[in-house]
Order: sequence, then structure tokens, then C-alpha cells
Amino acid sequence: MNVRFLTVSIIVCLSFFTHGQSTDSVFIRSVYDEALSRGHAHENLRSLCKDIGPRLSGSAEAEMAVEWSFQKMKTYGFDSVYLQKVMVPHWERGTKEVGWIKTSDGNLHKLHLLALGGSIGTNGLMSSEIVVFSHLDDLKKAPKSLVAGKIVFINQAMNETEISTFKAYGGCYAIRGNGAVEAAKLGAKGVIIRSLGMPIDEHPHTGSMHYEEDVPKIPAAAISTKDAEWLAVEVLKGKCSLLMELDCRVFPDAPSNNVIAEIRGKEDASQIITFGGHLDSWDTGEGAHDDGAGVMHCLEALRILKTLGYQPKHTLRVVFFMNEENGNKGGLTYAEACKQKGEQHIAAVESDRGGFSPRGFSCDGDSAQVAFLQEFKSMFEPYDLHDFDKGYGGVDIGPLKKHFPNIPLFGFVPDSQRYFDFHHAPSDVFENVNKRELELGAASMAAFVFLLDKSL
Amino acid sequence: MNVRFLTVSIIVCLSFFTHGQSTDSVFIRSVYDEALSRGHAHENLRSLCKDIGPRLSGSAEAEMAVEWSFQKMKTYGFDSVYLQKVMVPHWERGTKEVGWIKTSDGNLHKLHLLALGGSIGTNGLMSSEIVVFSHLDDLKKAPKSLVAGKIVFINQAMNETEISTFKAYGGCYAIRGNGAVEAAKLGAKGVIIRSLGMPIDEHPHTGSMHYEEDVPKIPAAAISTKDAEWLAVEVLKGKCSLLMELDCRVFPDAPSNNVIAEIRGKEDASQIITFGGHLDSWDTGEGAHDDGAGVMHCLEALRILKTLGYQPKHTLRVVFFMNEENGNKGGLTYAEACKQKGEQHIAAVESDRGGFSPRGFSCDGDSAQVAFLQEFKSMFEPYDLHDFDKGYGGVDIGPLKKHFPNIPLFGFVPDSQRYFDFHHAPSDVFENVNKRELELGAASMAAFVFLLDKSL
Repeated sequence: MNVRFLTVSIIVCLSFFTHGQSTDSVFIRSVYDEALSRGHAHENLRSLCKDIGPRLSGSAEAEMAVEWSFQKMKTYGFDSVYLQKVMVPHWERGTKEVGWIKTSDGNLHKLHLLALGGSIGTNGLMSSEIVVFSHLDDLKKAPKSLVAGKIVFINQAMNETEISTFKAYGGCYAIRGNGAVEAAKLGAKGVIIRSLGMPIDEHPHTGSMHYEEDVPKIPAAAISTKDAEWLAVEVLKGKCSLLMELDCRVFPDAPSNNVIAEIRGKEDASQIITFGGHLDSWDTGEGAHDDGAGVMHCLEALRILKTLGYQPKHTLRVVFFMNEENGNKGGLTYAEACKQKGEQHIAAVESDRGGFSPRGFSCDGDSAQVAFLQEFKSMFEPYDLHDFDKGYGGVDIGPLKKHFPNIPLFGFVPDSQRYFDFHHAPSDVFENVNKRELELGAASMAAFVFLLDKSL
Repeated sequence: MNVRFLTVSIIVCLSFFTHGQSTDSVFIRSVYDEALSRGHAHENLRSLCKDIGPRLSGSAEAEMAVEWSFQKMKTYGFDSVYLQKVMVPHWERGTKEVGWIKTSDGNLHKLHLLALGGSIGTNGLMSSEIVVFSHLDDLKKAPKSLVAGKIVFINQAMNETEISTFKAYGGCYAIRGNGAVEAAKLGAKGVIIRSLGMPIDEHPHTGSMHYEEDVPKIPAAAISTKDAEWLAVEVLKGKCSLLMELDCRVFPDAPSNNVIAEIRGKEDASQIITFGGHLDSWDTGEGAHDDGAGVMHCLEALRILKTLGYQPKHTLRVVFFMNEENGNKGGLTYAEACKQKGEQHIAAVESDRGGFSPRGFSCDGDSAQVAFLQEFKSMFEPYDLHDFDKGYGGVDIGPLKKHFPNIPLFGFVPDSQRYFDFHHAPSDVFENVNKRELELGAASMAAFVFLLDKSL
């Protein structure tokens, strides 16, 4: 039990039921009005998606995105805008990425596929018989004789009956992260997985995977759910082979940056509230929901608070983290630097679940911190946010917990139903982010940071 | 205060906290599983949108939609499937529908426009100077001398700061419904309105308008919000004229049908729960959200309950109403017929707010009925529905209230943020309905009807 938060929680509770609540309500209404009537989030996201595009760590686009963000933040007249150097991995999928299934009757079927992030290339065309598993656990239990020399196809589908699509994602995540290692342990030459996407469609979904020391590295790719459904039927008819060429390569780590903007606290500038998302994205689509929407939520929140003349008690700091997708070096570097500078961090918030209609905020903390969060619930009722509960904060802000064990970490919770239509896929483009939904997210972030600042 | 509902409410409350709640929860979970894993709603909607298309009352497509629905319902083995004759208005926009603005410097700008439903044609090319009003109230107060002989442009925007887009729609509805009458009273030759759409885009939104006796009938059309924004600037530069041709025409009322399916009640078949949406749509787009999604919610709900072997206490009746959009003859005919047959109607539910992520249900009833509704809230928490409050039922089921004054009318409440991107516009197509969101709506309808049936 965290005594500070229990006390704060009681104070918040009491103050809400006196004069504080009505003025806070009026201010929050003005936050939403600003976001919905004069918002910048949608146009900023358009520019990031269309003028820069996808921005994987180490790429030229990632560096342009850093530049874009720095210049954009500068235009808003915050107290300070600066870069924080981060060394990031640099992986590229290269120029070749093709795959065909040769079916038992000799026909060729071209696959919609994407190499998984971090995969090695195939060094020319590789081909081998396919062996299929419908669950990663089945692969783990398989005899070497079944798998050795073959290409493993893991056809484990996201559980469509999970109401939270993130839970469904969590249930499948390991096929992407560990599939290559498990297949290679049994002597497989390569692995293809069913994309971690919810709909049955032609978009492959990439994402990070890893290798382990002492286990051979084998190429790994994701095929579209539609191809996966087709292939699952085809292998029942007879032996199928995969022919695949991936041109992936790894370069030396590259210098990059977190991009940071601050409004200094008027009462205690040394106490910091961090809120952010990640600026990098996968190299397909435009990183519009993941996580262009998240960084725009946070930048717009700070812009709104400044525009409305809000004088924060604590220092409000927006961080556009670099490299969440394949290394989290931005989050790790940021937390380390905060510790080294002897800063005081009192709360952190992350938006990395897409630009959909807001539902609430989660708290990755103890019961007192969750109770503190729940005090905010009534303030958000007019805006249709209702979900204020224990839950994950975010990957980027996660490392703060190591150095600041009592810090409460909050996650913005939008509606999750459409997220895995787009996540890490070519369809994650600006056109698939709804303007109002994005704006309501930005307003919710601004209102939440405002309430945090007032209550802590 | 409605004593029956107060009593029922208390019983529901008590029974939920004994053994009933857990078995009901298990059943509801199976409802969602069926909808999400083996659902028919998305494929049925695809077929209605693509094999039939838009289906305005009186059109060949509307008749094909009746046939499609009747045949589809027959495949599910319900206790009875039948048609109910309805006479409907028959208006067509014809083959010509064009408009240009001639600006003060003589340039021509082609408009994205749609005649409003019910408008007369222009009888060839009409042209006249534009006079602009930013609110219907300003038009009402204008002197005849300003308006006579001109074409009125009402540029009243939906209020983007309303969190519920339906409230924003309600605030603007009159420019479409009454704009022509108000303009004609002052001698205008025609009227164009800013579309009742939330985004700034190129899609005009049609919808019903009306004329009044003793007021001249003038042509009326909606232009896209993007054109409206442009024109508002252009008229400040100097006189603008509209050149417009509309080919609209009215035909004699046509015979059509409501399409009805029932599962008979096992305890008291004479007591009826109606749930439905409207089968007709505007003649642009595909009527996918409005109200293809609504009829699919209801049909799928009945299919799910039957598939799961549910034996209802009361008769469950799905109605696909005809002609909600421009006359509500289906709703009026249905209610009248129910009365004439001496039926007992204990509740009605409507889905006509799109196929978006479910948020809850509203009740158009007294406080006891609203309290009764609120008892269901906890059952829907696992499915992220939270909005159970007083609110509108629906246009189609509305006339039941006249004949059955104590009937509670319920409306399905999905997230409203994207609805007015598509409503009555060419963009209301199947592709803009998300499969999971549609399925969750159908499951929510099935679960709600199940709880109603058990609790009443």
C-alpha cells in the first residue's frame, strides 16, 4: 500500500466535491472544445504520415521524423524543446521479399508476406517442405524428425472471442517473438507465422522477433491471415513447399534521438510528469495508429494546456520515444538519464493503443494508485470515458519503474476493436485514423494530465 | 411511476444476485462467442449491400431487399416468417443532378450535391444569385427583399464540440427538414444546405425534407461540407450564382412490405417483444450503417438465440421495417396492425444508430422503466457496454407507444463518433462497417433481448 497515494486520493476525493470540481469541469470542457474545434492533431498526423511516412529505427525516415518533431514542437513556444541521444538497432528488410507456396498438385500461389523485424535474410531463394502447427505449444512438443530441414508454418489465430483485442494479441504474441527459436531448436530451416491480425484479409502484419545464442538463426516471416487460412486447407490435401526470398540485413547500431518538450512547473518544477508515445514505427504502412496517434495525443495535449493558459504545478514533459518497436532503447535511455540527473518523477502516461474513440485510462500500480485513478472517473463521464482500472502503462515508460519504484504508470485506453486490423500492417495509414476519434483522444490526454498535475 | 416495472426491477435485481446471474452470464458469454466466431451478420450485410445496394422506398431495389430478407429469414427455420403490406411514398432523384457556382469573377465551380429526399425538380437548368445564412434562425428573421428571387444557402454546421454526434445532428436537423419551407416563405427560388455531415469532405448527405401547404415548393439540395466551406468564403468576395438542375419526381404511392420473423414464446406466446431496424435506405451509398447494420443486428440476434437453443418465454419478433427514411409507413402500419389484432406488446428495441462498437442501450420510458434497464448494466460490463440511461428508442418502434402507452422502448447505443461521416452519404458502404464492431452489436442485441425476455 502506497501511503502517499492513499492520502492524495482522499484529498482528491474531497476537493472534487467542493468548489474544485466545477472549475475543473469547466476547464476540461474547454480542453475538449479546443481539441474538437481548433485541434492540430489530425493535420500534424497527416504531415507525419505523408511528409515522412513509416520510420523504423535507424532509417532515414526515422531521422526525418526526429527533425520534423523537433521543428514542430519549436513552433508551439513551450519552455524547452530538446533532443536526447539514443543508440538504436538498424535493421532493414531490403529490396526482396517474396514467397510462393507450391501445392501438392504443383500449382504456385504467391503469398502476401512480410519478414519479421530482426529476421535474417534467406541468402537467395530458399525452399523446403512446409510442416504446419496450429499452436506454438504443439511445435514445442513436436519430434525433431518431423521438423528438421523443413519450414515451419505456425497457424495460431488470435482468439476472436476475446472482447479486448489486446488480450487476444497477448495470447498469440509468442508465435512471432519465439517462433523462430522454437522451430530452429528442432532443426527447421525457416518459419512463417500467421499474421497477428484480427480480420481475415490480405495484409501481412510484421513485428519484432528474437534469436537466442546457441540456437541457429533462421529466416522468419508473417503471411496474411487469408493466406494462412488458405494454406491450412491446402496442406491437408498433400505436401506443400515454400519458396521464399528475404533480403533482410542488420547494420551497426545508429545514433538517433528521443524528442522532448516541456512546460516548467510553477510550484515545483523539479517534479516531473512524463507523457508520451513512440515516434518510430514499423517500415510498412505509415505508423498512423502505431504510434503516430499516440505522439499526436501527447503533443496536442501539451499544446492545448499551453493555449488555454494553464500554469502547471509540476513540470509537464512530452517525450516522443525512439525505438519502441524493436529494442525500446528510447525508453531505456530516457529512464536511465532521468535517474542520472537526479530528477523526481511523480507520474508517467503513455498512449500506444491507437487513435480510436477514448474509453479510459489504466494504472500499472498498487491498489492506492488505482484508487487514485478511479477518482478521476466522474470527471470523464460527460466524454463517454468509463474504463478506469488496473492495467498496463506502456513499453516506453515501463523502464521508469526500475529507477522510480513508486511511480504510477498510466496507459490511455481507446476502443480496441479495430486496432489489430492495422497494427504493423500496410493498412496502418493516415486515412484509417478518424479525425474526431483522434481529437477526443488528445483532449482526454490533456484532461488527464491536467487532473494528475492538480491532484499530485 | 410504473408499478409493474418497479416490481419487475426488484425481482430482476434479486434474481441476479442469486443463481440466475451466473447461468445468465454463461449464456451471454455463449451469445458473444457465437457472434464473434460463427457470426452471419457481416456476410449478410455484404450481400444486402452488394447484391441489392441502396434501397429507397418504392424502388426496385427496395422490393429486391424485401425478397432477399424474406428468403434469408426462411433459411433460419424460425417459427414463422411473413410479409406485412405497407403502402410507401415513391420519390426518385432521376438522372440529372448537377450544380455549379459562378463566382464573382466569373469562374465556374462544380458542386458535390445531392437533392434532398422529397424535393421537386428544377424543370431544366435554374439559376439565380445566392444569399447565404449561417443559421436557420437568421433566415427566418430575414426581410423578404433580401431573399425573394434568390437561392438560399444555409451554411449551418453541426456543432463539433458535442460529444454525442446525434446531439449535433439534432441541432442542425431543421435546416434540412424545414429549410425549403422557410426560404420559400420569403420568396426564394431554391435552397441549398450544408450537408449534415461531421467531417469536412466531398460527400454530400441527403435526407428527408418537407413542404407545407400554401407555401410554394422549391427545389432543395445538400452540398458537401467542403463545398460549403469554400462557398462561405467565396460569397464574401462578391456575388455568387448557383446554376442547378435536379430531375426529381414523385410517383404514386407503391406497395411494399415489412418483413417479419418470429420465435413463439413457450410460456406466453401472446406477449410480444419486437426488435428491429429499417430495411429501406437512402438511394446513395449502400445503406450499410443506416440501417443495414441495424437489421443485421436484429436478424443475427434471433439467429443466435435459436442456434443456442434458447426457448423464449415470450414471442420474440424481428421486424425489418420499410420506409423509415421518408415516411415511416412501416412503423405506423406495424403499430396499427398490432393494435387491430389485439396483440400484447411488452417491449420493443430498435437498432438504427450504425454498426459501431457497442456502448449500451437507452430507454424511452418512465423512471421505473429506466431503473429496470439499469439492472442489466452489470451483465454487460465484460463486453465494455456501460451506457444504460434514459434516451430515445427509435423512429420505427415509436408508433407502438400510441397504441401501447406503457410499453418501454429501447434503443441500441453504439459509439457515435463516426456515424455522421457516413449517414445518408455515398460513403455509407459495406467497406466502412467493421466486422467485429458489427458482430459485437449483434451479440449485444441478442443478450439484451434475452435479458428482457427473462426479466419481463
